[in-house]
Parts: sequence; C-alpha cells; structure tokens
Amino acid sequence: MQIAVIGLGVIGGSIAKALKENTAHTVIGFDRDENVLLDALSLGAIDRTGSTAALAAADVVYVCLYPADVVHFVEENAARFKPGCIVTDVCGIKGGVWERLTEIAAAHPFVYVGGHPMAGKERSGFEASEAGLFYNASYILVPDGAPQDAVDTLAGLAGDMGFGTIKYCTAKTHDRMIAYTSQVPHVLACAYVMSPRCDEHSGFSAGSYRDVSRVARINAELWADLFLSNREELTDELSELVHNIEDLRGAIADGNRERLASLLAAAREKKEKFG
Amino acid sequence: MQIAVIGLGVIGGSIAKALKENTAHTVIGFDRDENVLLDALSLGAIDRTGSTAALAAADVVYVCLYPADVVHFVEENAARFKPGCIVTDVCGIKGGVWERLTEIAAAHPFVYVGGHPMAGKERSGFEASEAGLFYNASYILVPDGAPQDAVDTLAGLAGDMGFGTIKYCTAKTHDRMIAYTSQVPHVLACAYVMSPRCDEHSGFSAGSYRDVSRVARINAELWADLFLSNREELTDELSELVHNIEDLRGAIADGNRERLASLLAAAREKKEKFG
Repeated sequence: MQIAVIGLGVIGGSIAKALKENTAHTVIGFDRDENVLLDALSLGAIDRTGSTAALAAADVVYVCLYPADVVHFVEENAARFKPGCIVTDVCGIKGGVWERLTEIAAAHPFVYVGGHPMAGKERSGFEASEAGLFYNASYILVPDGAPQDAVDTLAGLAGDMGFGTIKYCTAKTHDRMIAYTSQVPHVLACAYVMSPRCDEHSGFSAGSYRDVSRVARINAELWADLFLSNREELTDELSELVHNIEDLRGAIADGNRERLASLLAAAREKKEKFG
Repeated sequence: MQIAVIGLGVIGGSIAKALKENTAHTVIGFDRDENVLLDALSLGAIDRTGSTAALAAADVVYVCLYPADVVHFVEENAARFKPGCIVTDVCGIKGGVWERLTEIAAAHPFVYVGGHPMAGKERSGFEASEAGLFYNASYILVPDGAPQDAVDTLAGLAGDMGFGTIKYCTAKTHDRMIAYTSQVPHVLACAYVMSPRCDEHSGFSAGSYRDVSRVARINAELWADLFLSNREELTDELSELVHNIEDLRGAIADGNRERLASLLAAAREKKEKFG
C-alpha cells in the first residue's frame, strides 16, 4: 500500500518509522519543516516526501497534526483523497474532531476511522520519534459506522507497528475514559509541582514524587486544546478526584484511623483487582 | 563493627543484605518470625540471629519496625545498649518517634540519630528485600544534636549500602518535605483509583495511569499510621494540592484557554527547573 503520514512529530515520525521497519508498504512523509523531511529521508523513516499527486494516490492517510490542524487538513484535502482511501487521525480527544471528520467523509468517497495510539513521550518532534514507541501499547479505534474492511486494515497496520491491544469504542466512551486515564494525571502532575515544596524536593524525593510529577513536562499549547475539547468529561472527573482526596483528607484531619485504614485498604483492593 | 538489624522486612532485610554484600561488618538479625531468620541465615543476609547478649554488644542498631514498635523496642532495650552504641530508625515520619527516642537517648549512654532511607517497594516482607534497593537513593539523617562521629558512621554505612545522596535536616523539615514528596502521592494514588472509571481502564490506559496509580498498592495499616503521625503537614499539603487542581479545573471549566495554557507552561517550567 501507499501510506501517507501527515506531520512527522513524535507520533507521526514513530508511525512512519514503525511502518518502514515492520512492513513493506511505501511510506510518504509530509511535514512543513523541510529539515525534518530531509532527516526522515536520510534515516529511512520514509520512502519519499509528499506531493499533491502522492496524497491523491495514498491508500491510507495518517493525519498526525494538532486537533485543529487535523480538521483544517482534511477539509482542504477532502476532494483530493482517492475513492476508498482510509483517513485516520491520532487525536487524544475525539470530541469535535471525530464528528467533523465523519461529516466530511460522509460527503466524499474516502473513509474516516478515528484512531488514538496510546503512547507518548515528554519530548516532542521528529527527533523524539522511534520505531518502538508503540510496542505493547494500546491503540484505540473509533469506527462508528466505518466499513469493517477499513477498520481491519488499520488494526492490521497497528499490529505491524507493535501495538499490543486494539480497543474499539465510541467517541463518547473514548473521551470519558481518556479524561480519567490520561488527562487527569496530566492536570494532577501540573497541580502537584505548583506546590512551593517542589522547589526544595531534591534529596527528599524518590519514585512516588518522580512518577506523579513526570508528565508535568507538558506541551502546554497541545494539552490546553485537548483539555478544552473535553471540558465536560474532564471537569467531572476532576471533581470526582477532588471529592476522593477530600474524603481521605477528612479521615486524616479527624484522626479517624479506622475510616482511613479502610479507605486505603479499599484502594489497594481496587488497584490489585483492576491493575 | 557489630551491626544489629531489628526487623527483617523489606527495609531491614535490604539493609542487612546491602551491608553483607558491601562491607565486612558482622550483621546480626532480629525478627519475631523464626522462618524469616532461617531464610536470612541461609541466604547469607545475616551472620547470625540475635540474642540479648548480641544486642548488648552491637555498635550500631538499625531498628526497622513500624513507628509505634520502634518506640516500644527502644524503651524496652534502652538499658541494654552498650555505651556509645548508635541507634537509628527507618521511620518515614519523624514526628512522635524522633522526639521520644531523643528523650530516651538523653537519659542513657547510647546515641540516637534519626534516619530515613528513601526507598521502598509495593511489596513488603523479607522476601521482597534486596541488596540493591538503595542504589542511588537518598538517605535522610536527622542528627539534631547527635555527636558528629555517630552521624558520620551512619553516613559512611549508607554510602556502603549504595545510597547516592545523604541529606541532613531537622525532624520538622523532614516531615514537611515528606508530606509533599511521598505522602501526597500515596493519598493521590488511592483517591485516583477510587473513581468508577478505574474499573474499566483496561485498554484505555498507558504510562500516566500506571504512574499515578502505582502506589495505590499500599500497606494500609502502615500508611494509616504514617499519615496520622504527620496530620498537620499532610492535610496542609493536600489543601495546597486541591487548591491547585481547582485552579486548573476552573480555567478548564471557564474555557479560559489563555489562563490554562499559562498555568500549564508555568508547571512545565517548574518541572524542568527542579526536576
């Protein structure tokens, strides 16, 4: 197949590298930065750089841009994709993007399937990309009405790239779950390092500090957009978290050892049960 | 030197193993569980099992019990330690323990120096102990008035055990910093897994879920005691955290992108500056 990757950042670059390393498909790279394209070519991460003609010949198009740019790109190129071409994205939140792309696809002969590779890094850009980024990670597909063969093609490519799990769900379920599994930890990491004690932690910290604060090394512009495009689910989940912190805090403040120990034991049980 | 290790759990067991692996000192093990002592002997984690006479001959005593048991043990054996013997503990919180042991030491010829090895595991007990547990970790000493040669002896042994940093501070500073670096992440992990979404996270989660939830696999009885013995510092720090979460949540709820992006950028800057 001819596979176009639009945007060779950490995700797009890793997709290109993983496809080149594990499949015989032709990978065509698109990026606004000429130097990134030259690097990608010289590292063998892509077979060639993109053109309007190459885009029109692609069987699969991975659009690996920021959410707003994904919509712009597909709007601009909707009439160029060849009939039956599978267009997918890598947006961390489906709200907004998924509905709009589904609408555009309905009015054109290409197929859209929402996608979300559950992998990332604290660093961004092509130089942070790697063929093994997706090893054993989860890949979420949001097919909702897309033809099964297109969904199967993307699932097959995900397997080739090294993903360990393929999860299928609706856009709504995706966003509710991602609010919890990914967005809350990012909000939390940022809230955590805002404490004045952060400035003096050196020598007093170990694994638990490191783990909670890790993703505070955040891409502020990208995540501000992701948070705002999932406002309702995220604010609900943050309220749930604050409620649970206050519950534990209350037991500690009241010196209620029995209640505190029972809350902690219940948390341990959940962690052991659900992993 | 003759070194006694009281309580061969994950910390005491690791101290014994690290001393045996990296020094020529004689390590004498004490544990209420006969099977643990036999295991420790057969694995060479200790040279011999303890006795009243061996305790009276020890130059250094590591008391690796739960906080309340540390105080009981030192109270009961205060008159047995030999003159000049260095007694230290491994309690994660100094409040309560440190004052009481300092009082007892003042009335006897032994020396007490508070200690806190900043390492741990989700599993407990001797079978989870390992000689390399402390590699590159931080060891906090709370000397406050203890003779310098005793402090230096413990610092030297910590270096032998593989610790990468020795930090000196008062009991009050220790507890304020530990509330932030260690206790808040543990409360947080427990609060986080209490969400109903935790039950369905499989396939939707990646590194950030794993990192925040990791320490929810908590020893409920031990941590209930640790939280309650640091009630004031911990509840203050939890209030700070909730305040900062609410700040971010407010910007998200209001759709205030500028404020949200600036809060995230500030968090990133702090994380990059302080690590």
